[in-house]
Amino acid sequence: MSLPSVSLDVSGERFQVVYHIRGNEKEALARAGAVCLEQTVEIPDDLVPEGDIRSQIVGRIESFDQVENDRFETVISYAVELSGFELTQLLNVVEGNSSMLPFVRVERLDLSTSLRAHFKGPRFGRAGLRERLGVARRPLLCTALKPVGYGPSELGELAYRFALGGIDMIKDDHGIADQPFAPFRERVKCCAGAVERANRQTGYKCIYVPNVTAPFDRLADQARFAREAGAGGLLFSPGLAGLDAMRCLADDDRLSLPILSHPALQGSFVLSPDFGISHFALHGQITRLAGADAVIYPNWGGRFGYSREDCQQIAAGCETPMGGIKAIFPVPAGGMSLERVPEMAKTYGTQVVFLIGGGLHKHGPDLVENCRYFRELAEQMEPGDGGER
Amino acid sequence: MSLPSVSLDVSGERFQVVYHIRGNEKEALARAGAVCLEQTVEIPDDLVPEGDIRSQIVGRIESFDQVENDRFETVISYAVELSGFELTQLLNVVEGNSSMLPFVRVERLDLSTSLRAHFKGPRFGRAGLRERLGVARRPLLCTALKPVGYGPSELGELAYRFALGGIDMIKDDHGIADQPFAPFRERVKCCAGAVERANRQTGYKCIYVPNVTAPFDRLADQARFAREAGAGGLLFSPGLAGLDAMRCLADDDRLSLPILSHPALQGSFVLSPDFGISHFALHGQITRLAGADAVIYPNWGGRFGYSREDCQQIAAGCETPMGGIKAIFPVPAGGMSLERVPEMAKTYGTQVVFLIGGGLHKHGPDLVENCRYFRELAEQMEPGDGGER
Repeated sequence: MSLPSVSLDVSGERFQVVYHIRGNEKEALARAGAVCLEQTVEIPDDLVPEGDIRSQIVGRIESFDQVENDRFETVISYAVELSGFELTQLLNVVEGNSSMLPFVRVERLDLSTSLRAHFKGPRFGRAGLRERLGVARRPLLCTALKPVGYGPSELGELAYRFALGGIDMIKDDHGIADQPFAPFRERVKCCAGAVERANRQTGYKCIYVPNVTAPFDRLADQARFAREAGAGGLLFSPGLAGLDAMRCLADDDRLSLPILSHPALQGSFVLSPDFGISHFALHGQITRLAGADAVIYPNWGGRFGYSREDCQQIAAGCETPMGGIKAIFPVPAGGMSLERVPEMAKTYGTQVVFLIGGGLHKHGPDLVENCRYFRELAEQMEPGDGGER
Repeated sequence: MSLPSVSLDVSGERFQVVYHIRGNEKEALARAGAVCLEQTVEIPDDLVPEGDIRSQIVGRIESFDQVENDRFETVISYAVELSGFELTQLLNVVEGNSSMLPFVRVERLDLSTSLRAHFKGPRFGRAGLRERLGVARRPLLCTALKPVGYGPSELGELAYRFALGGIDMIKDDHGIADQPFAPFRERVKCCAGAVERANRQTGYKCIYVPNVTAPFDRLADQARFAREAGAGGLLFSPGLAGLDAMRCLADDDRLSLPILSHPALQGSFVLSPDFGISHFALHGQITRLAGADAVIYPNWGGRFGYSREDCQQIAAGCETPMGGIKAIFPVPAGGMSLERVPEMAKTYGTQVVFLIGGGLHKHGPDLVENCRYFRELAEQMEPGDGGER
């Protein structure tokens, strides 16, 4: 028995998702078939209406290949219309219910041309961010205002010294939100003012990047306030407040500010090789699609569980061709130090943002000098340094 | 060397998060200490300013106990002010950066009284939803309109027959968004009208619960439209569009509609015993805090990877005391059938919503009769059935 069939007006255009599926060949193939139903019609195969729903709406296995013992790669295609041409529902088709399957992992997205055309992606991308910061070739430099608990004046003073030392982007620590120690508006005014003051002295184009991650009903106001107060970019944690909220910030012509994406609450997606989403797809492709110009993630060898290969995959996802969607900067971070810059440079090349937070305080007693040293390290890199990926 | 100290005006009130940490005792204790820094100041211990930041802002280990070989339970407390009294930042303190640590899992939240007072939680909860549906004691019945690809008239016809058969809540499949096959407004009007028509015949108080998960900038409009068109509840996937967006829907007095939370894209949080968030905390406590009146999740023995114990933990998280935050309904789903109702009843008791989708079509040839049988099964349950947890 199946449900009644209907005729559908679909274009026939499909987008593809590459999944890795664990199991022996028979299990994995059955699981791939289950994904085709799970991500679309959500009914057992024997209930699927014949005709257009079976032939167009149900996911279609385009290929199925063994990649290693008990692991298969399958490409499943979906009608572009299923996405509703919106990010929330696109994510749902890619990995909504599959996120609850312990043996299916999203490896890569291959969006079709017409689907990509519905997404503007990053407003600035690498070239636009370089232009805004006046940095043609070397890696960009970023640091974080911390710790949470400091008031606007302490944070402003730190921002001033970082900017004086030649840092390009000074972001709030992502845990600095709208707490009573440093209320959002007061803090943003103070830090933006401090950076502007330093820029007048140095002639640099350093930007202050406040954290605007906020409750749903306050986000637009906070972002607008930040812009008016002189922020040069926005820090946003899509894991906390939604990938599509970030897309809205990126698409807003009245804001028109570069966006740094922070990975808070996103780690569970990537930590298992068996389920979730790959580093490449989540921190690279999906973050780009959601409008970030640069994506922060924990570098290998720091405090977190990402390997060097994971990080290289993120960097690759930041620049893999995606039609009109601009390439963005990888921002390896999380316990980085000045000592590790040469090693990071070797891996990432010059198309990278180095983010050093606490480590900048540790090099020597003078914070401004430490920043200058950081900048010198970056300036020594050859423009042709392409990194290893 | 440490950063300059400051004096802070904090209340001294703290909330607690129970984490499980993998490792031997020495490793686990070091990892607990790292979480105290990671979720707050994000600087190495030797840089932490002495005084109030070290004593009040850094997380504090309140207890540390072995629970099994290579697994320890630690209770870490945080100053309530760190949360900024908002859900986005509260989630960040609980599990923002820790989500990237492969050996730390959030097991339970113990929010303090004053922190809880900032969250309204579910507007209806169990008692409110029962009153709205006119069902005093038996389990509630829910089904889903599917498959995606059907137009408004096919979905409306299904809704009519489900309502005629005595289903209490008829929700959209969560993959039905705003696709060209069934544009949001047209679909909602059609299905809400169909359910109203059936209610006039039956005298029941069945509600239509459309999926309002939508892009950030269209969500408020869609929810308002649904309400005006006669929807009796809202289906929302916080994994796709944000937990705090759901809180806003719940808090909106102009909407004042019960909310069903769908777990799309949330599975990666709970699938590993080593990292992420427990079933109890995510699908139970956090979903409640974010305003859902009922939480859908995949029941054990269906298509997904949740065990019976995981599901019992979710049910427990739906009703564990949380101050003024109301208890909500667990909604086990995902490949359920009428045949499994007695077994589910045994586990969950009567404070549950049974959600059967495709399975309702399979019992016999007459959909309305199948629904009536479903209702009879529920009505046979004794009011005192408490379930096994």
